[in-house]
Formats: sequence, structure tokens, C-alpha cells
Amino acid sequence: MTDTDLVRAVRAYVAAWNTADDGARRRLLAESFAEDGCYLDPSAAVVGREALIAHTRAFGQRWPGAVIELTSGIDEHSGSACFTWRVRGPGGETLHEGLDVVSADTDGRLCQVIGFFGGYRSPHLALSL
Amino acid sequence: MTDTDLVRAVRAYVAAWNTADDGARRRLLAESFAEDGCYLDPSAAVVGREALIAHTRAFGQRWPGAVIELTSGIDEHSGSACFTWRVRGPGGETLHEGLDVVSADTDGRLCQVIGFFGGYRSPHLALSL
Repeated sequence: MTDTDLVRAVRAYVAAWNTADDGARRRLLAESFAEDGCYLDPSAAVVGREALIAHTRAFGQRWPGAVIELTSGIDEHSGSACFTWRVRGPGGETLHEGLDVVSADTDGRLCQVIGFFGGYRSPHLALSL
Repeated sequence: MTDTDLVRAVRAYVAAWNTADDGARRRLLAESFAEDGCYLDPSAAVVGREALIAHTRAFGQRWPGAVIELTSGIDEHSGSACFTWRVRGPGGETLHEGLDVVSADTDGRLCQVIGFFGGYRSPHLALSL
């Protein structure tokens, strides 16, 4: 199955959180996150791509060696998508987990990400992590 | 604990789905859903309060005696909230289930509801159903 534009945007967006390379981060968010997009989670309200570049850079500095990985499939309809994730530490341990709902604008970039924390379980589980 | 405005709006919004009284439905959505609010789920895109009044009325006609009940707490931050729900049939059976993420505008009414279908499980479970 070919990924949709929205699924590709989600994967690039997650990759931006996970890279230690600032040039790659900027490129990934340029293709996946709207210039005036908005990111909200229980601990942060981030407005604009430039601010999200700084926010995702800070994530890597806070948890060196950790990566965000999806723990469900990407459930998509009407330009929005829902998925669950965890922050996996260098030893494989789960440091944090949650659920994101994202919406794309007309050019396919994410214009809104709303995250909720905790061990959500999706019926759309990935076949393998 | 006193409910927040957003939690009250969610409860009035859910009650609007569940009433068979059209006057009550209109009153509940007038207090909980923005006039130009948007409702999206995998099977419906509903724009505007008037259209949502018709859509929620049609729900009661499709599933007589069924009610929507929350199956989690209402997890809230930054003007948005997440909760899981099921449609309970007249005999107590689960007819449908899913997860909603809602956002409120500045006057506290829901301006966006995005629903996903399936048996999501929230870490913020209600103490009792």
C-alpha cells in the first residue's frame, strides 16, 4: 500500500523529532509542518515552524539517544490523523508515551498537532514496532 | 472537583446527541458548539451548528434507544480535550466506539470535533461507566 501524503507528512514530522542533524530537522519540518502551524501538548504550546525547530532540538538535548516511535498505525480521514507513540530510551525503555491528533492544510503540511500524554491504546496497532 | 468550562461543553455536546427532544438538542448545542464549528468523523463532515443539529437528530433516528456514553475521563489541556466513547444500545450492547478530540474557541464553545472510530483505550479511564 502506498502511503498517503498525510502519512508521509507524519513520518517526516516524527523523523524531525528524532534527528540530531539540524539541517535534516529543518528540511523535514519544511516538508511536513506548516510555517504557521501550531503544536500543543500538556507541557508546551509552540506556534510556527521556527519555534518547532527549536522545540524538537530541545527534545533531543533533554533525552540524548531517545527516539519517538509510533506504537500504532496512522488512522486517517478528512485531512486528519490519529496515532499513538512512545519515547524509547537508549536501552529500549519507555520514557514517555501519548497520542497525537494532527491536521493538514491544503498543501499537505501539518497545520495543527494536539498531543495527549499517557498510555493510550489504539485499535489500529502496527503489525510490529 | 468543579468541571471546567470545556468539560461542561463536552458534557452538553454529548447530551445533545442523546436527547430525543429537538428543543433540548438545539439548546444544548447552542451552549456547547460554535455556530460555525466543524465536526469530522470517518463517515461525516458536518460544518455549522445547524447542520450538526440535523446530524445528531439523524443519529437518534438511526439507532433508536441508543446513547453515547463516555468510556474515559476527559483529558484536557490548552483548550482541547480527548475522550473515548461508545454507543450503547437499548440492551446495553456496544454498537460503536471511538475517540474524539475537541477544541474550544475563546467563548468556550467547541469549534472543532475530530472523531476516530474503533476501540481506543485511554489511560484516563472513568471510575465507573
